[in-house]
Amino acid sequence: MRATLIYGAGDVRIEEVPDPRIEHPTDAVVRVVRSCVCGSDLWPYASRPASEHGDRIGHEFLGVVEQAGSDLSRVRTGDLVIAPFVYSDNTCQFCQEGLQTSCEHGGTWGADGVDGGQGELVRVPQADGTLVTIPSTQDSSLLASLLTLSDVFCTGHHAATTAGVNERTTVTVVGDGAVGLSAVLAAKRLGAERIILMGRHPDRTDLGIEFGATDIVAERGDEGIEKVRELTSGAGTHAVLECVGTKPALDTCVGVVRAGGTISRVGAPQYSEGPLGRPVFMRNIAITGGVAPARNYIEELLPDVLDGTIQPGRVFDRTIDLDGVPDGYQAMADRKALKVLVAF
Amino acid sequence: MRATLIYGAGDVRIEEVPDPRIEHPTDAVVRVVRSCVCGSDLWPYASRPASEHGDRIGHEFLGVVEQAGSDLSRVRTGDLVIAPFVYSDNTCQFCQEGLQTSCEHGGTWGADGVDGGQGELVRVPQADGTLVTIPSTQDSSLLASLLTLSDVFCTGHHAATTAGVNERTTVTVVGDGAVGLSAVLAAKRLGAERIILMGRHPDRTDLGIEFGATDIVAERGDEGIEKVRELTSGAGTHAVLECVGTKPALDTCVGVVRAGGTISRVGAPQYSEGPLGRPVFMRNIAITGGVAPARNYIEELLPDVLDGTIQPGRVFDRTIDLDGVPDGYQAMADRKALKVLVAF
Repeated sequence: MRATLIYGAGDVRIEEVPDPRIEHPTDAVVRVVRSCVCGSDLWPYASRPASEHGDRIGHEFLGVVEQAGSDLSRVRTGDLVIAPFVYSDNTCQFCQEGLQTSCEHGGTWGADGVDGGQGELVRVPQADGTLVTIPSTQDSSLLASLLTLSDVFCTGHHAATTAGVNERTTVTVVGDGAVGLSAVLAAKRLGAERIILMGRHPDRTDLGIEFGATDIVAERGDEGIEKVRELTSGAGTHAVLECVGTKPALDTCVGVVRAGGTISRVGAPQYSEGPLGRPVFMRNIAITGGVAPARNYIEELLPDVLDGTIQPGRVFDRTIDLDGVPDGYQAMADRKALKVLVAF
Repeated sequence: MRATLIYGAGDVRIEEVPDPRIEHPTDAVVRVVRSCVCGSDLWPYASRPASEHGDRIGHEFLGVVEQAGSDLSRVRTGDLVIAPFVYSDNTCQFCQEGLQTSCEHGGTWGADGVDGGQGELVRVPQADGTLVTIPSTQDSSLLASLLTLSDVFCTGHHAATTAGVNERTTVTVVGDGAVGLSAVLAAKRLGAERIILMGRHPDRTDLGIEFGATDIVAERGDEGIEKVRELTSGAGTHAVLECVGTKPALDTCVGVVRAGGTISRVGAPQYSEGPLGRPVFMRNIAITGGVAPARNYIEELLPDVLDGTIQPGRVFDRTIDLDGVPDGYQAMADRKALKVLVAF
């Protein structure tokens, strides 16, 4: 089969690799129908040291079960399934608490002999726990929205949920990438009436407005903080959803959060230390979020996607085939594409 | 009247100062009956630069209202009252949300022309909002417990509450000072069945056991983390209450918290940045807490103190008069006293 490998910064290739096969009776093999490139894939695409061997990459996909291991009881051959961006048994103590990203028997795609998601086939460990079966469909826009439950929309939802967003909270979303826009949509779905989106790409913030943003703040740094404070009578917002992952973005969050409010981080942190001193302490700011346990949210979000109440797949603004993946990375890195969908 | 002033590190003096008087119709003047020295007073006692003028100090007191401003309707002359460690109007948007520490008309004792709490009389701004009237009593041990509602027990309660402690959460308390012991008592009161106290002073951890700690870990750093993990099947505890305020203590919290768990900080941070990188993000650790809005908790905690269900005043292990305050500071700094009560 053919799959995507990354060899170093700016060096993504499509190559022939061995077909996966069932290795454990709890495995399934899934033929990928839709995959995509994640903002977090751009970090290695920007900085991975060059090497002679490539690493498999990609962690968002949906597809059809082609082989099912003998221990599986939920997942059957022929099922259309969504794979969350980590695999998990869905039975351990952490999974039972809804934290499948800390599963005792879980792991990540494209590592430890497990295929990446940007390829034709994927061996799925712990398939009964990992995969969520969905109604069969060939509707392209629905498939795109369903694919977002693998990662990006669940990540936005995780930000909003862990920040306690509801109809009484005001919200700021920092970042107008696909995760930020998903966070806007998730906050709107949870009832927030005031959603300030901080972003400076009009094509993206326009979609943010369609997703439910009530105000756009294009300014950054102190100027952006000042603008959000002006919009909130000086107080800031109850919830701030950090969807970038950089230290300046986090500093902006501290600047725009209301006393007693919550900053939820879902941008993978490109820093090891952050602001936890007196300004955060004296104002009782909570910092929460983390890597999203998508598996915990898929069943809850699925009905709204299936009936079209929400269309998170609108974050995809370019569709390519597997051969187009290297160009897709470059387009996202150049900000010429918001998020690239791979149709097989 | 006589009051406590701090002139520099190690230099606390009792001096004659002008009697306070009503300056605004919302003021009251309170004659102090009990006051005390706070762990946070020890930071300036350790490091304040020496100067020719002293600053008033002390922020925990209860007493009898001696004069009441003309605008007051709740507080009356002769009332026995508890003063939380900041004053607040109790009506602004933040007070209404239970965050009186961010009151729009609030402030701190011993600053901006307001008396400190370690003196004979205190002018109390926003007295109707600030003061909580309690039944008159001369019972010394009850007065000691009531005084803890001014700060230390409410601070422990804030740690436990913001960490979401209940009968299903396991808890680690980092620090065996008066705040840490209060956090143990608060966690026990909220139903926690497993409370691990990290501390290495046997006289203090013994009181911790009486307050509800089920395990004592005397080791610090990596060794202490390892010990807590051993006690929790490797997982750590759901809630970790940080009651010290130093960076190493916070690092210990990150080491002992369970994936998906919460670190609540109530030790005033002696650092500006802290761990917010991948180990915290990938494990979905929330960091919450902050300066405790004691005013928000007093009414809720009062019945359990009045009927003796809890005796938080047991953290006081030395009682002095006003002239003894300088020695009291030194005794606490030398760890010869856990917490010093000042009886007038």
